[in-house]
Amino acid sequence: MQIKKTIFATAAAFAVPGLAIAQDTPAAVPTDVVFILNSLLFLVGGFLVFFMAAGFAMLEAGLVRSKNVTMQLTKNMALFSLAAVAYYLVGYNLMYPLGDWAVDGVFSALFPAVGVLETVGVDAAGADDYSYASTGSDFFFQLMFCAATASIVSGTLAERIKLWPFLVFTVLLTGFIYPLQASWKWGGGFLDEMGFLDFAGSTVVHSVGGWAALTGAIILGPRLGKYKDGRTIPMPGSNLALATLGTFILWMGWFGFNGGSQLAMGSVGDVADVSRIFANTNTAAAGGAITALVLTQLLYKKPDLTMILNGALAGLVSITAEPLTPSLGAATLIGAVGGIIVVFAVPMLDRLKIDDVVGAIPVHLIAGIWGTIAVVFTNGDANLGVQLYSILVVGAFTVVASAIVWVALKVVMGIRVDEEAEINGLDTTELGMEAYPEFSKG
Amino acid sequence: MQIKKTIFATAAAFAVPGLAIAQDTPAAVPTDVVFILNSLLFLVGGFLVFFMAAGFAMLEAGLVRSKNVTMQLTKNMALFSLAAVAYYLVGYNLMYPLGDWAVDGVFSALFPAVGVLETVGVDAAGADDYSYASTGSDFFFQLMFCAATASIVSGTLAERIKLWPFLVFTVLLTGFIYPLQASWKWGGGFLDEMGFLDFAGSTVVHSVGGWAALTGAIILGPRLGKYKDGRTIPMPGSNLALATLGTFILWMGWFGFNGGSQLAMGSVGDVADVSRIFANTNTAAAGGAITALVLTQLLYKKPDLTMILNGALAGLVSITAEPLTPSLGAATLIGAVGGIIVVFAVPMLDRLKIDDVVGAIPVHLIAGIWGTIAVVFTNGDANLGVQLYSILVVGAFTVVASAIVWVALKVVMGIRVDEEAEINGLDTTELGMEAYPEFSKG
Amino acid sequence: MQIKKTIFATAAAFAVPGLAIAQDTPAAVPTDVVFILNSLLFLVGGFLVFFMAAGFAMLEAGLVRSKNVTMQLTKNMALFSLAAVAYYLVGYNLMYPLGDWAVDGVFSALFPAVGVLETVGVDAAGADDYSYASTGSDFFFQLMFCAATASIVSGTLAERIKLWPFLVFTVLLTGFIYPLQASWKWGGGFLDEMGFLDFAGSTVVHSVGGWAALTGAIILGPRLGKYKDGRTIPMPGSNLALATLGTFILWMGWFGFNGGSQLAMGSVGDVADVSRIFANTNTAAAGGAITALVLTQLLYKKPDLTMILNGALAGLVSITAEPLTPSLGAATLIGAVGGIIVVFAVPMLDRLKIDDVVGAIPVHLIAGIWGTIAVVFTNGDANLGVQLYSILVVGAFTVVASAIVWVALKVVMGIRVDEEAEINGLDTTELGMEAYPEFSKG
Repeated sequence: MQIKKTIFATAAAFAVPGLAIAQDTPAAVPTDVVFILNSLLFLVGGFLVFFMAAGFAMLEAGLVRSKNVTMQLTKNMALFSLAAVAYYLVGYNLMYPLGDWAVDGVFSALFPAVGVLETVGVDAAGADDYSYASTGSDFFFQLMFCAATASIVSGTLAERIKLWPFLVFTVLLTGFIYPLQASWKWGGGFLDEMGFLDFAGSTVVHSVGGWAALTGAIILGPRLGKYKDGRTIPMPGSNLALATLGTFILWMGWFGFNGGSQLAMGSVGDVADVSRIFANTNTAAAGGAITALVLTQLLYKKPDLTMILNGALAGLVSITAEPLTPSLGAATLIGAVGGIIVVFAVPMLDRLKIDDVVGAIPVHLIAGIWGTIAVVFTNGDANLGVQLYSILVVGAFTVVASAIVWVALKVVMGIRVDEEAEINGLDTTELGMEAYPEFSKG
Repeated sequence: MQIKKTIFATAAAFAVPGLAIAQDTPAAVPTDVVFILNSLLFLVGGFLVFFMAAGFAMLEAGLVRSKNVTMQLTKNMALFSLAAVAYYLVGYNLMYPLGDWAVDGVFSALFPAVGVLETVGVDAAGADDYSYASTGSDFFFQLMFCAATASIVSGTLAERIKLWPFLVFTVLLTGFIYPLQASWKWGGGFLDEMGFLDFAGSTVVHSVGGWAALTGAIILGPRLGKYKDGRTIPMPGSNLALATLGTFILWMGWFGFNGGSQLAMGSVGDVADVSRIFANTNTAAAGGAITALVLTQLLYKKPDLTMILNGALAGLVSITAEPLTPSLGAATLIGAVGGIIVVFAVPMLDRLKIDDVVGAIPVHLIAGIWGTIAVVFTNGDANLGVQLYSILVVGAFTVVASAIVWVALKVVMGIRVDEEAEINGLDTTELGMEAYPEFSKG
Repeated sequence: MQIKKTIFATAAAFAVPGLAIAQDTPAAVPTDVVFILNSLLFLVGGFLVFFMAAGFAMLEAGLVRSKNVTMQLTKNMALFSLAAVAYYLVGYNLMYPLGDWAVDGVFSALFPAVGVLETVGVDAAGADDYSYASTGSDFFFQLMFCAATASIVSGTLAERIKLWPFLVFTVLLTGFIYPLQASWKWGGGFLDEMGFLDFAGSTVVHSVGGWAALTGAIILGPRLGKYKDGRTIPMPGSNLALATLGTFILWMGWFGFNGGSQLAMGSVGDVADVSRIFANTNTAAAGGAITALVLTQLLYKKPDLTMILNGALAGLVSITAEPLTPSLGAATLIGAVGGIIVVFAVPMLDRLKIDDVVGAIPVHLIAGIWGTIAVVFTNGDANLGVQLYSILVVGAFTVVASAIVWVALKVVMGIRVDEEAEINGLDTTELGMEAYPEFSKG
């Protein structure tokens, strides 16, 4: 997902393969077609990643108890909408602070129609340059990554956080925290210059969401009654069909997430790369699901569907830092480790009394770290020290920034619903609207 | 799916038409590539808009009471299927009454295989013309718009209308009413010649569905017990998770709806336009959701999820008449007004005792009118008088035509289920099949 | 969305931005662009067919009783994951046993990164060849077809089969049985050489899934209490909203299934063909849904939603063997027959005491046979004898191979849960996890 480097790579790529054939039927891809195909990749990838917002919403609505479903749906719909506006007003310009990539931000007039989404095909020097993609398509695609980061947080903190403080956090996360650290890698910042590799964001997106969620979970505390007398009380999700649907939607969206991060589809080499990314992404998810299936059978004598779902997602997160260079076999194994992580990290968090309602910390944070490290196994350009350093820097920044925001919100407006509201459910107490009003609860 | 044969077939295919250019890397897009990319836009846009049928089905199934869910699902599955056939047999030819765009309609033989979806790449004079897109892709795309119009109606009239009269109305709406008025704008008719601007159909699609729904709602009357002693009795939807899923699906489908309406993706300019449309469509939905969120918090002290969902949809409808010329900021504001409309129009309709089960009239009709007017703020070619005139003409036509059909159906076969059926629910009485047969109703 | 004007606008648009060239804008598609567009077709088609896994999961979760929903979801998530790995390790190489299409299979090293998904653009002789598509995209697309075959089986055998034997069968089906018979047609084998026509797999995919399901259903036996005293006891599905959603998802996925099977999108002719396939696929589904709607009204006086859903799916299966040559009218009729098949075959299977929980045998097997035969009505190259012979050969092979596996599994590990587990539901007994734990069952 890094822009500058890739432009050159792409330019080189489509210059080369025009071979000697090219007599009558030309072989090479016209530059305008490169531009169109790159933009198209962003548009298709973008709507797939958009749909991940629905995936997160269904996964989380399925894994909370029925008394909190409306609240979880409300948070997901609201967080995506606020992320869209915060990223447009502030985040995008913060992330790519180069004049020629700017969209109309805080300072530009709203009317009339000349939004800066226009400055397409013009390079820094003001000359024609159709070697990348339309700014609108790039913005659309990048926005979806930012929103995904916020979606990760909402699951962990479900069933006890107040709506408005959560939404304020979302605005700060998507307008400032995410774009700032993303610029260090994808905006061509210092991590990028050090050689940090994170193809589609195991660290930049998933671990950041995970760190923000972890910080929030610690400050917010566990749900009432979750940990009693040293035991963890199971609070099963209310609708596993929805949770499964959400997982399938996220899986599909990930093809756009990882595939689109190739950032180019206008050459034979690029489309072959995108294809390998699709195949590797799929097989990593399968690997994660299978290890969770087998491990829960071995450990608990019964396969655990929620672990299998999270195993698939952890497989996806694991392959996100490098979906291109692994072979299918390596990708399957990298994803499989993600599944193992989920099976062991979920009870480990419970032992630490960190209450992560949907398992987002194992999936996005721990598997995100694993995936970022795993780059060194298949990509010769990766440096383990740089990978670890980048994980730490991004983690430290996100934890500190998140903690400041969470604590400030706690002091200023309170972040936790009162005890009665939590017991009776946030739907009736905070929203006055049940998700399934007609069905008797047993 | 057979590889070997196809390789040769393909190889032969692109060996033939080659010209003689191909020195360095050419810049321009070859005409055949333009044709392919335009068609591809319709295919991708088309399947996205197709999926809106699922979105409407889930939204409506989630917002009706559980005793009417099977009926609502049946109506949605049936209306799409009937729309597909009615538009193919009659509507498409009625809408584009030009010889060279005709598909095999009522009069053509069914067998053998030479459907008129063939006449692709031939202009009116019979000469080669690859400047647009394949007829099949155009037909596929246009069909989905027609079906969307019918989906709008089913939500408003839920929980009390008989199945078959509703389906007869659907056939007449999709075979005749929609295509006729659509031809006035998109078939190059008199509204188009006057300079009416409606990019993707705030008026042509959404307000038409809304007017038909409004007319039906008035003739059909409200649900039993909805308005009692001057008060409106809430009848909450049975499954807000489904309703939220439906909204996300519709939101995704709208990228195809508005983006595909650019009708071209074969040039740098077109793909940049499609990209801006995607970004504007997304931000308008976000704007609508956010205003509904904030307004319901301010007015009722509690955010209202169904208002937020409808706010997002109203934002989408609002930007549909002109998703290209606004800046991101303007698009957000245009959508935001849609959210305001929903919050105020839903109770207003209730005060008028017009019972709109899912809120389709505020979303599709009132926001559709707003969106059509809002074109004048960002598109210099728009004329407010023409926009208003067109809104009125289309509205008057749709109301009169719909009223005639509804009244005729009322006289001939009756349009409303009997009281007992309505009280017990349409699922058991009309269909003998419950959507959730095992769950006790509270 | 207006056609005439836009034609001119587009023509102007791509005439302008061409730089100095622009006189003779070339017409032909450069070979590299052909390669890119073909690969893109596979990627888009592939993620659509991937999503069919979600469609099957939702359809089946909606049609089983609530006590077996978690198990059905678990099976669907696990079968897709196992299919992905089995097809990669064994199936793909078995299906296309040509050196140059090989992916890194059983024998290749897992690390380092040089997976054989690389051998793209190289023909059998080792020379450059960009005439097809990237191997990764082809593999990704083909994999999804293989997984769909396994999804078909899980529905029929629901509510009584043990998890692990089912998963072992899945591995053998997707690693060996499916690829072997698929190679006879799509690998250029003897059925292909005889002239067997099966465009996207009415026989190769759907009937194979159907035969495997039928064989399993006979060996497994019906659910307890399904057939009592000569009567069939209805066991209604627990969630028709999910079943409807699943059907819509499958319907959308089918555009990728049939459209992608054109295997090429890099020429004007190919994209026009893909477009016709989309339109025909859609109208066939509509035809199937409409006949099921009308027939159930006529036969039972009440439309039956589950029949309508299966009617749409049977329409889709029916058109899959030949979605290109029929006119829209013929495609509608071919699909309509699929709907008739469902309405009559579902009770017929019950009379034979073959318990097919979701109706997959009528939809995929019987409509698959019909679709394969129907090719002769619209494709002049089809030979009825060859079609029938191929149906029989594929059927006999699949039945024998499946029977061997099912019987072996029955002997070795048992395939059926014990009586108590079946009565109490597989979710609590086999998995210890309910899908809807909070809702009282009536």
